[in-house]
Amino acid sequence: MKIEANLPQLKSWVTIPDKSDFPIQNLPFGIFKTKYLSSVAGVAIGEHVLDLVYLHENGYLDGLGLPAGIFNQKYLNDFLALGRKKGREVRARVSELLRHDNDELKSNRAACEIALVPQNEVQMQMPVRIPNYTDFYSSEEHATNVGSMFRDPKNALLPNWKHLPVGYHGRASSIVISGTPIHRPKGQIKLPETAFPVFCPTQKLDFELEVAFITCAETKLGSPISVPEAEENIFGLVLFNDWSARDIQTWEYVPLGPFLAKNFGSTISPWIVTLDALEPFRVKGPEQFPHVLPYLSFDGEKNFDIALEVLIQTNNEQPTTISRSNFKYMYWNMAQQLAHHTVNGCNIQVGDMYGSGTISGPSPGSYGSLLELTWNGQRPLHLADGSERKFILDNDTVIMKGHCEKEGVRIGFGECKGRILAAN
Amino acid sequence: MKIEANLPQLKSWVTIPDKSDFPIQNLPFGIFKTKYLSSVAGVAIGEHVLDLVYLHENGYLDGLGLPAGIFNQKYLNDFLALGRKKGREVRARVSELLRHDNDELKSNRAACEIALVPQNEVQMQMPVRIPNYTDFYSSEEHATNVGSMFRDPKNALLPNWKHLPVGYHGRASSIVISGTPIHRPKGQIKLPETAFPVFCPTQKLDFELEVAFITCAETKLGSPISVPEAEENIFGLVLFNDWSARDIQTWEYVPLGPFLAKNFGSTISPWIVTLDALEPFRVKGPEQFPHVLPYLSFDGEKNFDIALEVLIQTNNEQPTTISRSNFKYMYWNMAQQLAHHTVNGCNIQVGDMYGSGTISGPSPGSYGSLLELTWNGQRPLHLADGSERKFILDNDTVIMKGHCEKEGVRIGFGECKGRILAAN
Repeated sequence: MKIEANLPQLKSWVTIPDKSDFPIQNLPFGIFKTKYLSSVAGVAIGEHVLDLVYLHENGYLDGLGLPAGIFNQKYLNDFLALGRKKGREVRARVSELLRHDNDELKSNRAACEIALVPQNEVQMQMPVRIPNYTDFYSSEEHATNVGSMFRDPKNALLPNWKHLPVGYHGRASSIVISGTPIHRPKGQIKLPETAFPVFCPTQKLDFELEVAFITCAETKLGSPISVPEAEENIFGLVLFNDWSARDIQTWEYVPLGPFLAKNFGSTISPWIVTLDALEPFRVKGPEQFPHVLPYLSFDGEKNFDIALEVLIQTNNEQPTTISRSNFKYMYWNMAQQLAHHTVNGCNIQVGDMYGSGTISGPSPGSYGSLLELTWNGQRPLHLADGSERKFILDNDTVIMKGHCEKEGVRIGFGECKGRILAAN
Repeated sequence: MKIEANLPQLKSWVTIPDKSDFPIQNLPFGIFKTKYLSSVAGVAIGEHVLDLVYLHENGYLDGLGLPAGIFNQKYLNDFLALGRKKGREVRARVSELLRHDNDELKSNRAACEIALVPQNEVQMQMPVRIPNYTDFYSSEEHATNVGSMFRDPKNALLPNWKHLPVGYHGRASSIVISGTPIHRPKGQIKLPETAFPVFCPTQKLDFELEVAFITCAETKLGSPISVPEAEENIFGLVLFNDWSARDIQTWEYVPLGPFLAKNFGSTISPWIVTLDALEPFRVKGPEQFPHVLPYLSFDGEKNFDIALEVLIQTNNEQPTTISRSNFKYMYWNMAQQLAHHTVNGCNIQVGDMYGSGTISGPSPGSYGSLLELTWNGQRPLHLADGSERKFILDNDTVIMKGHCEKEGVRIGFGECKGRILAAN
């Protein structure tokens, strides 16, 4: 799909610093507040946020048929519910307003003063109320690493893995916005050498590097979404840190899956980068063999080339990059995930979040969790401050970043960041 | 706790038929609509629904400090958010208004005409918007039966089972109100004799007899709820049918738990029976051994004696009772479940639903699923119409009922009912 707002030659009259995540070709949506405003929808541009409430109320979005007050809400759900097409129209109009050769907003200095809020003066909020959250397990490298460690290196992947995108339901209530600190969870841990479990803070706190997609449609129970229809139901993506307590997980997860090892908190980046903005970064995914069942087959390029990075920051030292991965490694793509999720009639809702599962690449430096990077603590990582890490310590901050780059255009996600506090 | 609204000697001026689920000692809350009204909160009494919007708007609930419009909403969430104490006050006031010796409402014939709507003229709606849904696995008999069938009869329970209430997250979007038909789901099924899975309608469609509790509080991430505090966060209970596709489940569930085998639909009964109404029916639960960790220990009686029944109706024949179980069999009680769920800091929200897991009793006639009742299809059940069932067939209706009885008072749940339609 050709989208004019994505053209590499577009320039904005708003200053875009070098290496910015937010050039005019991105225009992701989020919810922010300031000292004076609460819960306003905005679009990131360079080092600013463009206030959509102001634009809407002052006629800059006229003709798009947007309901009154659509951007002046706690969450973006009602806006997303207008559908991906309407989102595309709003993005196109914002792109137009921000182009270097467009004077409508630029020439009104007073309007610019109000509508363009410096990002360092805003506090980003959860962009959506999340009615349902599902997590997949769709990186072959991750599933293979975990299977090798805990089961059998020769049969690391379970028999179902290459036939369906394995997924499970997660907890929506504990998904928080980047910057929210999280207390180290306590839970039951059973050591191999003891007969009974003990109750204590997790000793194996980990992150999981993921990307999550957010849906913009409500379907009826009993009405599956096919692979070709799937992407039109996806508004955009965020970075996702699925914090995990490995020792709690090991003890609790049989037979019904992870529970308290995951639901103490998950962190998302604040800006929903639209699937439209990511259009130029489509790539082919891994070859799928054995062949998938017809309801999972697809045409064209359904993976996206998004470079991902994980950093750990201790105290206020310079962060150390500990992993470089890429969203393109996903064995199962988003269209397949959504088609599989609904093929039994399961309905989706606006604002639902669907995590990719940990994204590990082929080399050890591209693994998406400490479990894999340190091979369950056997090979500690060395940080810039001279310390070692097997798992996350109190006061460590984990930062995830992601961006696409092509023909001089760099589309980024901003940061997905969270600090671990001592157990309560 | 002594609650005046529960006194066995209370009589109502509203006619209560023999064996009614809804005497004056019950007073469960729900949301109904009629030909003329949409989304109104009501209380069940005998064969009627008492319209809370009418009572509130006409001064009958004055002095309770209820916000305007609190009962005129799509869901009960905002009412529940006022807390269990406020719910108790409203129930006490409704009880007062319905007592045989109270004339306030009774003497106003016009008001009665409007406020008391015959149940056969209403359509019950989902009582709450469910932000999060969790399912436990807390019946020892059920876990033992399943473990015996699929793993090892000698080690049927996994090592963690007696140390923690095993649970997992479920799908909130596909929980529907009693009476909603559900299409037989399609999915991947892998037969032992074939190398690859096939895609087809489930051949092993099952129900699971459960009771679910609904919370009425919002907690902060990082703030656990202790066992002694837990019940004050629970508003009440509904019957819950966790429809399951056993063949889909067998193939998909490793290593992350059930997913499409469950999320094609779950059915709840429409009336939230308050924990207050159930107070007289507390009983001791099964002895817990080995001793639980301190955070799971409790005092007093935390189980509830609720007789449960499952019936299958074919065409429009007389339904056949195929199971009689009891909520009192639960090994882990609700207070323990909620304390465990939050001990890692996981936050709860108003309207959350927490299923007990399949409730099986000690005898084969008390098993809570067809999987157990027919021992995975090996021992078909005989129905009143002369047919046999290994699993559910198209057009079968599954009906669940539940009630408590003591000192001449019978508190019931109404029906949790759903018909299976052919695959789409």
